[in-house]
Amino acid sequence: MRKGLLFIVSGPAGSGKGTVVNTLVKNHPEIFLSVSATTRKPRPGEEHGVHYYYISKEEFEEKIKNGQMLEYTTYSGNYYGTPLKEIEEAMERGKDIILEIEVDGGMQVKKKLPDSAVTVMLTPPDREVLEARLRGRGTETEDVIRWRLERAKEEILLLPDYDYSVVNEDGKSDLCAEALYKIIQAEHQRTKYTKTIIEKFI
Amino acid sequence: MRKGLLFIVSGPAGSGKGTVVNTLVKNHPEIFLSVSATTRKPRPGEEHGVHYYYISKEEFEEKIKNGQMLEYTTYSGNYYGTPLKEIEEAMERGKDIILEIEVDGGMQVKKKLPDSAVTVMLTPPDREVLEARLRGRGTETEDVIRWRLERAKEEILLLPDYDYSVVNEDGKSDLCAEALYKIIQAEHQRTKYTKTIIEKFI
Repeated sequence: MRKGLLFIVSGPAGSGKGTVVNTLVKNHPEIFLSVSATTRKPRPGEEHGVHYYYISKEEFEEKIKNGQMLEYTTYSGNYYGTPLKEIEEAMERGKDIILEIEVDGGMQVKKKLPDSAVTVMLTPPDREVLEARLRGRGTETEDVIRWRLERAKEEILLLPDYDYSVVNEDGKSDLCAEALYKIIQAEHQRTKYTKTIIEKFI
Repeated sequence: MRKGLLFIVSGPAGSGKGTVVNTLVKNHPEIFLSVSATTRKPRPGEEHGVHYYYISKEEFEEKIKNGQMLEYTTYSGNYYGTPLKEIEEAMERGKDIILEIEVDGGMQVKKKLPDSAVTVMLTPPDREVLEARLRGRGTETEDVIRWRLERAKEEILLLPDYDYSVVNEDGKSDLCAEALYKIIQAEHQRTKYTKTIIEKFI
């Protein structure tokens, strides 16, 4: 049985990575979407084990101490992180896993699992489209929009550290999900995963 | 415009690489199949520019001397090689090119063009299937079959030097061609070719 691989999908706010990743797992339900853990309280409509695993601060810190968090960060006084156990078990069962994660976390994971983690960055087509998307939300102040544009630039500058990148044009998230799926399939053909075939000729 | 990439497809006799490559370019005519040059005489039904470029020994040696052969080898007293010019021109025009070539030649090309050549090895599923295919041809002596099996093993041992490998099961050359096509598409998403997107955010 082929081993599962871990695909890290990052991209700035406004890259549409949430929609792309959800389309991918809807169209290809054999692929598993990793659920993060957090210490923040669930919002109305959010479900434990679907949107996040909602755990206590003590439990989260215990997991950090025991090396059970693949990566983690803090934001607005709460922890957010990726529990290692679920991912390891899925990969052992041959399941591919998607981890939708910030650039910093993505780089942490790639360092810990260089041989089975593949990194993909989704980007908007350009700064103008990104700005239009951020303004289109109509929920953020001018200051927040400026900050997000600056942050997006910083993240996209790290693109050469990623393995792959895919441009998400307006209204093309289906195409983008398929591009991601092709990357997943192609990665399984890399000789670092297929070299056991040699044994069948000796 | 995106630059074309060079895909080197190798595989032992009996891997079915000819059928797979021909299926690929039939289904995806935007991909260009490189035509080799040779000093051997055309066989009945073979066409100049389709099966080979049939050139004289003097012309071939002139091209070697001027660095116009990407790789070459000799077999039964004749030269066989890949003219560089056609490949360079196609890549500049943004065309992807397939080069169906022996393992030794494949490695020569990878060394010369490490940044734009991608190597894929096609293999039979195992030694038994390979032997059945070689015997099924009904045209070769026992000695030749033994020699081809030995040679296949040597070639497949070099699989870790290739970027990708694909197993060609009996009757599955269409699937194999599609696996190759996905590798081509995924390779174009590698950040080493896509990093110009960064300029659109600065």
